[in-house]
Order: sequence, then C-alpha cells, then structure tokens
Amino acid sequence: MKSEQVITSRDNPFFKRLAKLAASSHQRKAAGLTLLDGVHLIQAYLPLGQPESIIVSETGRESREIKKLLAEADGSTGGTGAKMAITVLSDGLFHDISSVRTPTGIMAVVPIPSPGSVRAMKYNDNGKEEFWVLLEAIQDPGNFGSILRSAAAAGASRVYLSDGCADPWSPKTLRAAMGAHFLLQIYERSNLAEVAGIFKGKVIASTLDAGKTLYQADFAGPVALVFGNEGAGLSKALLQACMERIRIPMPGGTESLNVAAAAAVCFFERVRQKKTGG
Amino acid sequence: MKSEQVITSRDNPFFKRLAKLAASSHQRKAAGLTLLDGVHLIQAYLPLGQPESIIVSETGRESREIKKLLAEADGSTGGTGAKMAITVLSDGLFHDISSVRTPTGIMAVVPIPSPGSVRAMKYNDNGKEEFWVLLEAIQDPGNFGSILRSAAAAGASRVYLSDGCADPWSPKTLRAAMGAHFLLQIYERSNLAEVAGIFKGKVIASTLDAGKTLYQADFAGPVALVFGNEGAGLSKALLQACMERIRIPMPGGTESLNVAAAAAVCFFERVRQKKTGG
Repeated sequence: MKSEQVITSRDNPFFKRLAKLAASSHQRKAAGLTLLDGVHLIQAYLPLGQPESIIVSETGRESREIKKLLAEADGSTGGTGAKMAITVLSDGLFHDISSVRTPTGIMAVVPIPSPGSVRAMKYNDNGKEEFWVLLEAIQDPGNFGSILRSAAAAGASRVYLSDGCADPWSPKTLRAAMGAHFLLQIYERSNLAEVAGIFKGKVIASTLDAGKTLYQADFAGPVALVFGNEGAGLSKALLQACMERIRIPMPGGTESLNVAAAAAVCFFERVRQKKTGG
Repeated sequence: MKSEQVITSRDNPFFKRLAKLAASSHQRKAAGLTLLDGVHLIQAYLPLGQPESIIVSETGRESREIKKLLAEADGSTGGTGAKMAITVLSDGLFHDISSVRTPTGIMAVVPIPSPGSVRAMKYNDNGKEEFWVLLEAIQDPGNFGSILRSAAAAGASRVYLSDGCADPWSPKTLRAAMGAHFLLQIYERSNLAEVAGIFKGKVIASTLDAGKTLYQADFAGPVALVFGNEGAGLSKALLQACMERIRIPMPGGTESLNVAAAAAVCFFERVRQKKTGG
C-alpha cells in the first residue's frame, strides 16, 4: 500500500464522522451509511458493491489478510478503474471507534443496502417457496444478530422488523450476524400485521402458551415465522394477524427460551421438514 | 420491612465485598459465593436453600414484588426461624454493582451450589435416560447463559465445562441463563475427553464438516452433546473422544451458526425425537 497520511487527531473531521457512524443509529439513518468492522463483514459485503471508503489501522495495513482483502475490494469496482479511498488511522484512534476488543484493523463505510439490492436466495426456488421472518421489538443486539444469522443459514429470504426493534445496522448487531445482513432482504419499520396479511403462505407465531407444538405444525411450505420481544412477547394486534400459533415443548420444566434460541429451533424445524418432505 | 440502616458510602466494607463479588471471577471462586441480581434469579435459587444475605436498594425495598419475595425467602429457612440478613444500599451504590441497566432493586449473595446439591430432573427418568452437555471454551457470557437456559429447558441434567470456559457464575451468564443454573448439575474445569469416555450413551459432537446431519442421527437415547468454541471449534483431543459427529445443514449457504443457536437446534432435535419415538 502507498504511504497514506496517518490520522492521529481526534479533531480530524473524517475521524469525527466515523465516530458518529459507529455510535449513533440516528447518524447512520441520516447518512444512509453504516460501518463494517473486520475482514469477515467486509468480505460478505463485497458482492453488493464497493465500499464508500476503507479505513485501516497502522498495524492493520501491514496484515497479509487485509492486503488480500483490499485487492479483492478494488476488483469489485466492476472495471471502472476507480481506486477506493483508503484512510489510515493510528491504532489508538482505530481502537476508539472499533466495536471489537481486538480489532482486525480494517473497517469500511458502506451504504445501507436497500432490500431490493440483495440477491434472492437460491434456496427460495425463485420465490415459489418463500420463507419470511417477522420480528417485533427485538432489543438486544446479540439476539438480533444471532436471529439474522440463523435466518440466513436456514434459507430465509426476507426479514421484516417492527418499529420497536433495535437498529439492525449497529456495529454490535452486524458483528453478531456475521454477514447475514447481506444475504437477507431487511425491511425496517414495517407494519408487521400488514405484512402478515399480504403473505401468501402460513403465518406462524411462536408463543409460550399455544396448544400445538412446532413439531405438530407444517413448516415445509411458504411460511412466515413471527417472534416477539422476549420480555413482553408478541403484541395482541400481531398475534391476531397470525394464522397459527405454536410453542416449543420444554420437558425440563422451565418456562421459556432465549428468543434467538427459540428462533433457531423453529427455523431449523423448517429445514428438517423440507429435507424429509414434512 | 424494618427501617434498616442504609449504606451510602463506597468505603463501607460490606459494599466493597459485594463489588468484588460482582466484578471478579477470582473473588467468587475464592469465596465460593456469587451474586444473584433480580427477583427472577433469586426465586429460581430458593428451592436450593436460603441466601447468605439479601441486598435491596432504597427504591427496591418499597416494591411489592420484592416484599413478596422476601417473605418467600424467609419461608425457605426450613423452620429454623432464623431471619435473613437484609442490607439496604442507596440507589446509587446498588446501581454501581448491578449488572442490569434498570435493576429490579434486589440482589442476593448465595453459595455457589455443588453439582450434587441440585435436584435431578424429572425428565431424566431417574438416570435411565441421561442427557449431558459438554462445553469447550465457551467465552461469551450471553452465549454461555443461553446454552444453559436451552439445556435446562430441553431436559439436560448435567453440564460439563472445560477449563477454558468463561465463569458460569458471572452476573452476565447468570442473567442470560434465567435460573437454569439451579436446574442443572454444573461441573467446572472438567476434562471433557474423560467425561466423554465414561458416559454410558452416545457422545455426539456438533461440527461444521460432518458427513451426517443431525436429522440422520439418533438423539433419543442417552446422549452427551458436545459444542466447542465458536472461533476455534472443538479441539482435536475432544473430537477424537466423541463417538459421532453431526452437522446442522444450512441451505441458505452460510457457513455457521452462533454456538448458542446451534446448541438449541441440537437440544430440541432430541426433544422432538423423544416425543415421536425417534
């Protein structure tokens, strides 16, 4: 890499802008941008386009893994020949905005993708076998990211989020989802009851008190699976919009599961039923 | 409640001791004690015995929910008539040691239970159908707690932890597990390969590259399910001690799941197979 100038001052305007993107959901929304922290997330993003800018730490720019990634990222310009802007931060400043305790040394500023820009999954048979996920007021970034990661792994195509969900584009949620954001069409601030109404398939709510267990339900066709806030559960309005309710049986005698664990169990019951013919 | 003296100074020796228990795994191990934060965790603990001491915040001691819990806790003395020690902290001090952003206003200092003191689960048919969980180097307290919570819900009786696991008795892990600690026999610093060797049933490792999927495996009999560190996976030594390897199929094309999500999927595949006869 060429010997770019190293930013070392917290008063640098570019650094200030990065710090705001890292810390504030409001700033990310206003700018339509987010910050991807680490090699893995940036790699997952590249099929969607070129980052707006790349930031490396002084240590990071010497890393072989990061040099390789930068070469890949340059290749993603689609032949425009435009070189990406690369900014070098001192290790101290990089650490200040990184959400990771031991940062890999690279971040990228990228436009938050519109749902339509994300490729449809192969698994969805061109839309014939839709699998959607509806999330109401999921607050914990770790849970939120884990749900997105499991949904992408199980072959979901779309995720609809209620107004009360945490910011899916926060550094913590991005990190927990490990790139799943770029395999899913994510619709924020959705009216979930309306989405449930237009879905052409079964809309199934996971609740604690349903009579039927998930193993007694048919998950193999087009399904939208609905999960609510862990403390409050699903709102009445959304529950009423769901066609079916299921519960996960808990022989150990406890009352409930973590919402990300419950979602994974339901998502992979669909995977199981599809493999075996339901 | 009587008008106990309120501790308002950070120099108070009792407060200092609480702060150490909250912050330091080493201190918890040395004292054989941990700190339960919140009504739910304390309620889950009570069947095992009486807390060593109860701490309430000034605001907390006025709460009806907490007054009710204190009455219950007094009842758990087993007729010795001994009143529990209750200490009141100013809201500020309470907040300092609480791991919760909006604390419920009650904590308890309790002895870390020995595995043998935890009641065997009904589900285990008096030991005929054992279900154990082996965890190697699980580091994230949220994941760790979620795995314990799912294990208890699915009817596991024992959890063995390798030396490299985070402290299961940390406030964050306790909170994420929502009381599961008191339904499981938790064995710390275990030699997992040895445990796998003595288990009288199938020892099944979840890996990313096994040929067989979990749906092709028999989970219904006595099983020990084995999960490794999310970054590094399972150690070779432990993998070799396992009788069977399975993977979770991921039709969405991603590589892996969060370890707590993967564990939940495997635990509940056992629940499903047991219900339907495998």
